[in-house]
Amino acid sequence: MHISEFQEMMRRLYFHRDNERGVKGTHEWLVEEVEELREALEEEDKEAIEKEFADVIAWLASLANITGINLEKAALEKYNNKCPKCRCSPCQCTF
Amino acid sequence: MHISEFQEMMRRLYFHRDNERGVKGTHEWLVEEVEELREALEEEDKEAIEKEFADVIAWLASLANITGINLEKAALEKYNNKCPKCRCSPCQCTF
Repeated sequence: MHISEFQEMMRRLYFHRDNERGVKGTHEWLVEEVEELREALEEEDKEAIEKEFADVIAWLASLANITGINLEKAALEKYNNKCPKCRCSPCQCTF
Repeated sequence: MHISEFQEMMRRLYFHRDNERGVKGTHEWLVEEVEELREALEEEDKEAIEKEFADVIAWLASLANITGINLEKAALEKYNNKCPKCRCSPCQCTF
């Protein structure tokens, strides 16, 4: 599924709730899901890890929906087969 | 671009660095990018917001690469045209 199709699915499912909650509250949920992902990774619980990865990308798409950002377009404008810093593939940054 | 194709692009560009940094360090970068997204949203800087959304999904894909998770598969197993909690589209959860 395209990134933009996933974002659109999140819009159909959740836009009414996401928009009501607002940007600040939705970002806070994203932060919470990233923390839950850390916990699942620490516990090395594969099933929980997969679910938390799903939740992080879902909340990121929700946040993109209520801020009017096309996540796929934004991702490919910055990352398009080259590292945006060194312009190489694979990245050869020396920092 | 499919979510899995984006993840594969991140693998080509960054796996050598991501794998060396490890799971904990890569998760810390993800947290940092989510914070930078918050700052860009607060400043209402559209260009910066787009770049930070790109960075968050890029670091999420990097983290998925080094933990052996297929981000697209994980996302669609949990979110597949229905809310995973109420099984409705759109979501009708009452919490």
